[in-house]
Amino acid sequence: MSGQHVVGKLVILGLGLIGGSLAAALREKGLVSQVVAWGRSAGSLSKGLELGYIDSYTLDLSEAVKNADVIVIATPTLVAEDVLAALHDQQLSARSVITDVASVKGNLLVTARRLWGSEPARLVLAHPIAGSEASGVDAARADLFVDHRVIITPTEATSSEALGIVRRLWGAVGAEVVEMSVDQHDRVLAATSHLPHVLAYTLVDCLARQDSQADIFRFAAGGFRDFTRIASSDPKMWHDISLANRGALVSMIELFVAQLTELKQAIDAGDSQRIMGVFTSAKAARDDFARALSVKKAVSDNEE
Amino acid sequence: MSGQHVVGKLVILGLGLIGGSLAAALREKGLVSQVVAWGRSAGSLSKGLELGYIDSYTLDLSEAVKNADVIVIATPTLVAEDVLAALHDQQLSARSVITDVASVKGNLLVTARRLWGSEPARLVLAHPIAGSEASGVDAARADLFVDHRVIITPTEATSSEALGIVRRLWGAVGAEVVEMSVDQHDRVLAATSHLPHVLAYTLVDCLARQDSQADIFRFAAGGFRDFTRIASSDPKMWHDISLANRGALVSMIELFVAQLTELKQAIDAGDSQRIMGVFTSAKAARDDFARALSVKKAVSDNEE
Repeated sequence: MSGQHVVGKLVILGLGLIGGSLAAALREKGLVSQVVAWGRSAGSLSKGLELGYIDSYTLDLSEAVKNADVIVIATPTLVAEDVLAALHDQQLSARSVITDVASVKGNLLVTARRLWGSEPARLVLAHPIAGSEASGVDAARADLFVDHRVIITPTEATSSEALGIVRRLWGAVGAEVVEMSVDQHDRVLAATSHLPHVLAYTLVDCLARQDSQADIFRFAAGGFRDFTRIASSDPKMWHDISLANRGALVSMIELFVAQLTELKQAIDAGDSQRIMGVFTSAKAARDDFARALSVKKAVSDNEE
Repeated sequence: MSGQHVVGKLVILGLGLIGGSLAAALREKGLVSQVVAWGRSAGSLSKGLELGYIDSYTLDLSEAVKNADVIVIATPTLVAEDVLAALHDQQLSARSVITDVASVKGNLLVTARRLWGSEPARLVLAHPIAGSEASGVDAARADLFVDHRVIITPTEATSSEALGIVRRLWGAVGAEVVEMSVDQHDRVLAATSHLPHVLAYTLVDCLARQDSQADIFRFAAGGFRDFTRIASSDPKMWHDISLANRGALVSMIELFVAQLTELKQAIDAGDSQRIMGVFTSAKAARDDFARALSVKKAVSDNEE
């Protein structure tokens, strides 16, 4: 099926859930001529080879990226900054496109500008909105991105040819590709993903610190279970995301605290009209959102 | 099956999801000799009769409560205060036990003390931790309380005989009965149920007010859907609960805002140790809670 290749040599830097799933999807469909994985230790890499997700692996970055068509940084969020620095020190082929899958884009753009002096034309930052409570290459699935959105955040410096390659790559594995600015991406994700995780972690920690801890959790029921599900996410991953996106996240927390404080005052004052206003508009927006989401098929239960 | 009756004449004041389910469960098992329902209009009452949940209904409170063994106030939370006042004006049988199913207990205890001058010995406040996103007698189910907890909040004035009747009533329909003080109930429910609802409503309202509203919800995924599910709950019901439990709820909101503000400062300062501390302890507590909950069979997806 080599006639259908959307990319020649693909290099995955960091073979976890996302990198493994991308490799698996491209290989399963015969959309790539060669997948090479690189990492700091052989564990996941040899596992990925066993599972048939990659053609080969190496611990040598120079060897990995040689003659690469596309280099995908698929490490944890903060490590991606270091990998970008390591790539800056490499002699890359002029045709190599660098892309990534991290949950925050602004920190990588800042890092790239610092390293290269300006944004490299062949750096195309991207974020697949897909994930799973599980992590690691063992949890990888070729269909992970089907019907999920991938946000690509090109700048004015981005080569339209490089952008086209990354768009085709994600389109080929079933994702819906959308574009927005780096700032908008980081604000939108702070609102819909990073803030909710911070709220869930804070609530559970807040209750766990109470004297009556045992009793408090004993009387929590189904609604609480759903509400706090995301507090079972990997602490290190969310630590990294919180720091990488600290500007947008801190602003969102401040906005949330201001509105929560207003609502608290309304409850304290018995201001029925105000309470009903908040609850009613929230219910309407949430019902709309649930309807829109249920229209999409095969939505996974988690996001990154 | 009259030999197994745990109660003779049961009166349900307000025939919705909870009252209807209790009546249905008791009648299905032959545990009650007579169920009479009262309400302000015939709609749900005639529906309940059609569905076979009750023996008869009336719009006349005096007729309803005549010779009652147990009177269950099953109206919305704030209406329960008015119903208590209406019961105070009735000539009740000396054996009649008054109980309820409301989500908040402190406001009813205060109301009772005001009306009767002290707590009536045969008033036994109770709260079944069960519910459904649906409401109304149409959504009633005989198995709604199976394996769910019912919190009973007796005071020193409560007759132990009356308490025993209410315990047997709930035990007979499959619930696990536990006792705690009114104050503890209202604090625990503020923490595990009322605060989470307020947070979910506030978050969705906060995002809906943003300029980029359409885009923000467009990029929300599965984790956001679970986190905000409870913001689709009935606004009037949660307005009532927020006001009925305003003391404990306002305290919990303040505690939450204080901890969220600390975490925000840690994120802003890049204090990794503190961020990891909160996220790690929250994940551990939430994982424990999820394990404990999954041990219980047949837990419904919602709470009241």
